[in-house]
Amino acid sequence: MRTITIKPKALTHNLNQVKQRAPQSKVLAMVKSNAYGHGVAAVLPALQQADGIGVATLTEALEARQLGWEKTIGLVEGAFTADEWQQAIDHEISCVIHHGPQLEWALQNIPPASSATRVAWLKYNTGMNRLGFNAEGVLSAAKRLHEAGYQLILATHFANADDHDHPLNAMQIERFSSVLATLKDTISPDIQGSLCNSAGIVNFPEYHYDWVRPGIILYGSSPVVDKSAQELDLQPVMEFSAQIIALQTVSAKDAIGYGSRWRAQQDTRTALVSVGYGDGYPRVVTDDAYVTVMDANDSQSYRCPVIGRVAMDMIVIDISSAPESLAIDSKVMLWGDAPRVDEVAGHAGTISYELLCRLSIRPNRTQA
Amino acid sequence: MRTITIKPKALTHNLNQVKQRAPQSKVLAMVKSNAYGHGVAAVLPALQQADGIGVATLTEALEARQLGWEKTIGLVEGAFTADEWQQAIDHEISCVIHHGPQLEWALQNIPPASSATRVAWLKYNTGMNRLGFNAEGVLSAAKRLHEAGYQLILATHFANADDHDHPLNAMQIERFSSVLATLKDTISPDIQGSLCNSAGIVNFPEYHYDWVRPGIILYGSSPVVDKSAQELDLQPVMEFSAQIIALQTVSAKDAIGYGSRWRAQQDTRTALVSVGYGDGYPRVVTDDAYVTVMDANDSQSYRCPVIGRVAMDMIVIDISSAPESLAIDSKVMLWGDAPRVDEVAGHAGTISYELLCRLSIRPNRTQA
Repeated sequence: MRTITIKPKALTHNLNQVKQRAPQSKVLAMVKSNAYGHGVAAVLPALQQADGIGVATLTEALEARQLGWEKTIGLVEGAFTADEWQQAIDHEISCVIHHGPQLEWALQNIPPASSATRVAWLKYNTGMNRLGFNAEGVLSAAKRLHEAGYQLILATHFANADDHDHPLNAMQIERFSSVLATLKDTISPDIQGSLCNSAGIVNFPEYHYDWVRPGIILYGSSPVVDKSAQELDLQPVMEFSAQIIALQTVSAKDAIGYGSRWRAQQDTRTALVSVGYGDGYPRVVTDDAYVTVMDANDSQSYRCPVIGRVAMDMIVIDISSAPESLAIDSKVMLWGDAPRVDEVAGHAGTISYELLCRLSIRPNRTQA
Repeated sequence: MRTITIKPKALTHNLNQVKQRAPQSKVLAMVKSNAYGHGVAAVLPALQQADGIGVATLTEALEARQLGWEKTIGLVEGAFTADEWQQAIDHEISCVIHHGPQLEWALQNIPPASSATRVAWLKYNTGMNRLGFNAEGVLSAAKRLHEAGYQLILATHFANADDHDHPLNAMQIERFSSVLATLKDTISPDIQGSLCNSAGIVNFPEYHYDWVRPGIILYGSSPVVDKSAQELDLQPVMEFSAQIIALQTVSAKDAIGYGSRWRAQQDTRTALVSVGYGDGYPRVVTDDAYVTVMDANDSQSYRCPVIGRVAMDMIVIDISSAPESLAIDSKVMLWGDAPRVDEVAGHAGTISYELLCRLSIRPNRTQA
C-alpha cells in the first residue's frame, strides 16, 4: 500500500532547531499548501510552540481555525477581495497588505481594536518583484494604516536567500533595514520587521528581526544550496513508502517499461513496486534515482535503483543488491531517512517543496 | 480561487470517439489514480456507456462500487495479497493475474460460478517487462485457470504504442496474436484478448480484439506522438484555472521571483496569479509556457507568458498583450481549451498524464 507517514516528533525537533537559530524572534510556521503536502491536521499539534502559522488562502486559514488553532494566523498573500477581508476580520486572521486595493479594504473596514486583524503585515517589495509596495508606497501605506489604528509588521521576501552570496541578498537587506528604520523613526518605534524565510534563517542570522517565517526547514529539507538537511540537523517529517508486489528476472538486452528506455546489461533481478506518478512520485528521474527496500526477515535495508520510466501506478527497481529471499510485500521507501526527499528532488530536477506538495490523494496517510 | 472544472459532456464525447474507433470491442475505461486526477465520482456518470472501468488498487475498486458502479471493474495489477483476492471476490472485482502468487490465490480460492471474479485477465509479458508471465507460463496458467472454471481474457500492454513505427510494437503484436491463437486452439475458443491502451486504439485499429482499455484519450489528451488532441477530435475534460490577485509594472532590468531567473527587457505590465506548484501547476516550465487570461469586461482572451520561477502559491505572468483595463479577479486558464494540458506538459518536459494526476487537494472542484 502506498503510505505517507507523518512524524510529529521530527517536526517538533525541526521547530526547535529554528528557535535555537532565531532565539529572539517569534516564529510564523508556514503551513500553506496543506502544510507542504504533510496535511494541516497532522502537523498543527506538533507546532504548539510556534507563535503563529502562515497560510496562502483564506480557505486554509479557516481550516486551521476549525482545527482549533487559536494563535496568530498570517494570510501571506492577504485577502483577495473586500469580502475576504471581512471574513478575515470575522475569524481574526492577520493579513498581508501588498497592494492598493487591499490597503483600501483595510482603511474602509477597520477591525475592532482587540482583533488580531488589527495586526497587518505590510509587504515591501525589495527585489522579488511579486508582492509589495515600493519604498514610497510603503511609507505612505504605513502612515495611513498606523493612523487608522493598525499595528504593523514590515515584511519582505528574499528571492535568493538559498544562495548566501547572491548579490541581491545584500540589496534586499539594505532596502529592508533602511525602510524599517525610517518607519520606526517617523511613524512608530513599535513597528516590527519580518524578513527571513527558511533560507534566511540559516544564512542571515543577523537579520532575523521580530518574526521569522520558516517553511521547508520545518519539514526537514535543507533550504540552502550548500548544506544538506543532515548538516543542519533536520529530521524528515514525511516518509513516503510502498510495497513490492511482484518479483522477476529480466534477461540481458530486455528493455523495461514505457519507451523501452532502460535495457538490462545482464540478467537482472527486478521488483515491481506499487507506486507511480499517480501517487506523486516524479515521472522523470535520472538514472541516479534509488529507493530503499526493507527486508522484513532480517531487518536489513538495500539501496535499489529505479529502472525504466516511472509509470502512473508502478515503478520497477533493480534488486541485485538484495538477497534472493527478498519477499513480495517488502516495504520500499521512496523518501524519508534514505533517500532524503532532497535527493529525490535533485534526481527529478526540482526542489523537495514541489515533491511534497504534489502528492495525490491516493496514498494512505498515517502518523508515526 | 484555484478551480478544477470537470466537463462530463467532453468525457462522453471522447468515449464516443473511442467507440467509433473500436466499434467491435468492449471498452474498459481507465479510472485509476482518481480518474487521472479528474475525480472518480465526477467521471463515472459520464462513463455509463463503457462496458467496464479499470483501476489500479483494491481501494479504488471498492470506491467505485460504493459510488454505485455495477458493471465490470478490472483491477489492472490484480490483488496484492490473498486477503485482497478474497475482497475482490466479495465485491465482484475482475482481477489481472500476472505472477505466480496471484495464480495460486486464484486456484486455491475459486469464486462462485456467477461471480464477476470468475473472469480473469491473464497477463502476458510481450516486451514491457513489468507485469506478466512469459509465453510458457501463460499457457500453463491458462490451462489451470480454465480447468478451474475461469473465463479468460489474455491481456498485454504496449511499451511504445505512442510511436507507431517503434520496432517493439510489431514484436509485441506478433507474440500476443500467436499466444492468443494457441490458447484458443488448445484450451478454449472462448478465450478473449485485450491489447490496446489509448495509443494502441489510435495506432493499431486492426488489433483491437475483444476489449480496449482507453485511458488518457478519454480525458482529452493525445496518446500518440504525431497527432494532437485537436486532430483526434478530443475535448479537454478538465479546465484548471485561477485568478489575477494583483497587477504591477516592473521596470526594465528588474528580476522577478526566486532565483531572479527572469529579467524585464523593458518596463513590463505583469499580473500575479493565485496558483503555483502547491496546487499542481508544474514548477519547472520553459519560457514558452503561457496561460490564457479572460477579460470579464469584453469577453476577450489574451495569451500571457508565465515569467519567473513558478512558486508554491503564485505565478507571475506578462500581461503586455492585454488592455490596461484588465481587472484584478480576471480568470486565468492554466490549461483547458488553451493551452491544452498537452502543451503545458510539453513545456514541463513531461506528459499530460502526470500533470493531471499530480494535482493537490487545494484547488476547488466543480463541474460544468
